[in-house]
Amino acid sequence: MTSDRARRPGPTVRVRVHEITPSAARRPEDRLATEEPLEIRLAWPGAAARRVWVTMRTPGHDFELAAGWLVHEGLASPAAIHGVAYCTDADLTPEQEFNVVTVTLTSPPARDPGHRHVGSGSSACGVCGKDSVSAALAAPAATPWTGALPSPDVVRGLPDLLRSQQPLFSRTGGVHAAGLATAAGSLLVVREDVGRHNAVDKVTGARVLAGSSPAEACLVVSGRAGFELVQKAVAAGIGSLVAVGAPTSLSVRLAADAGLVLYGFTSTERCVRYT
Amino acid sequence: MTSDRARRPGPTVRVRVHEITPSAARRPEDRLATEEPLEIRLAWPGAAARRVWVTMRTPGHDFELAAGWLVHEGLASPAAIHGVAYCTDADLTPEQEFNVVTVTLTSPPARDPGHRHVGSGSSACGVCGKDSVSAALAAPAATPWTGALPSPDVVRGLPDLLRSQQPLFSRTGGVHAAGLATAAGSLLVVREDVGRHNAVDKVTGARVLAGSSPAEACLVVSGRAGFELVQKAVAAGIGSLVAVGAPTSLSVRLAADAGLVLYGFTSTERCVRYT
Repeated sequence: MTSDRARRPGPTVRVRVHEITPSAARRPEDRLATEEPLEIRLAWPGAAARRVWVTMRTPGHDFELAAGWLVHEGLASPAAIHGVAYCTDADLTPEQEFNVVTVTLTSPPARDPGHRHVGSGSSACGVCGKDSVSAALAAPAATPWTGALPSPDVVRGLPDLLRSQQPLFSRTGGVHAAGLATAAGSLLVVREDVGRHNAVDKVTGARVLAGSSPAEACLVVSGRAGFELVQKAVAAGIGSLVAVGAPTSLSVRLAADAGLVLYGFTSTERCVRYT
Repeated sequence: MTSDRARRPGPTVRVRVHEITPSAARRPEDRLATEEPLEIRLAWPGAAARRVWVTMRTPGHDFELAAGWLVHEGLASPAAIHGVAYCTDADLTPEQEFNVVTVTLTSPPARDPGHRHVGSGSSACGVCGKDSVSAALAAPAATPWTGALPSPDVVRGLPDLLRSQQPLFSRTGGVHAAGLATAAGSLLVVREDVGRHNAVDKVTGARVLAGSSPAEACLVVSGRAGFELVQKAVAAGIGSLVAVGAPTSLSVRLAADAGLVLYGFTSTERCVRYT
């Protein structure tokens, strides 16, 4: 186990840099967010593991990322996930082993994983592998949230609360965060990643692998609310999405269609509700 | 032409929103960045058009986006692009026509477009369609830039210069920008998009479709410098990448390997050189 840990990439790396101001040049040490590819493979009884996605992510919580991504894509219900493991293929180097995870399902996936996802993805990629415009826009949807929602006062406090739980951002200034919150404003889980979509996948995956439901009152994200984040929130059955940044035309349209309450430009000073 | 224009989606849309501050609630009008899918098809003599990518983008400069993406992916040299057109398939609705572009090449592409790109992509997606970890990391490379590079003084001035040419950001607060600059700090072209990778594709495509080389001293981007942006700069033969935000471990590694000068955390106050 110790040697495994030594080979496993950490969430940050140290580099010596040139910092240049109008009056001086220094050579301080800087910390970068680690960005490495993660390949997700899917297996089920009677079927060999097959590659379904590649994403650029910050190592850590890889099993959660894989589980959450599958749930958001409608490929697996939380109950159908039997196990997640790093790959031990003989043709992978020890370093590569930690960049490939295999998710085993208890039964075949809800749809052909090669149908919409013949390709792969990136760290900020929610429509990857969908091989046409119509497939890209077709979002899987969970039962809509009917519980309580956070009040505007609670909403305006969420970004600062999230920010207080972003150690990777504090060290690198280069990662996004996502958190799942109750209607009263308690953060249940927070995850960080170079890819904002990965952070959301990890949050849902954390709930799923802990045996809890990913459906909660509120998903809060540190960046903008693009269409793919709305898709993920809807697929997880979440009641509202609170973004620090701007939404897009398509995210507002999709949120309105799905009954998701969408906030943007959220700070202690104000918030803007779009649906 | 007039009716075509009427159907064509614009770069922003107006919505009526709820703005809530600690002391008041208002119903102002807000402008959102438009986000719509764009499907890129590729055709060449003797071959019918085939779909090679889908990205979520802000409409506008779509031909440039398609041309730049193909060059960055190593699928076409600038000289091999014969034409770009919106699709007029009978099975597309008038609205959909403006979400599908076909690029015609003078000869077959440099590699099988279905080999690495069997899938599709998203607005922030540079490794989409690459169906394995190794393919995701294999970047096409142009002849490295051997011309002059911007001095640190010029570098620190570039983000403000870029910001002064971002009308969509001023209206929506929700789009990224990329610009191509000379070593002396003149901006040759600036493009905006909800996807930062699309903005870079559009910049290269603008140069290519104007008959100019995409290879220049400096690419400046409004956000972070992820690995995919470094890949695109290397593929275009650009000399340096200047980002307002942070780079990642992989972007620094790839930039160092390719001889690209990489700056992050760039402002009038300071800049950090990573390679």
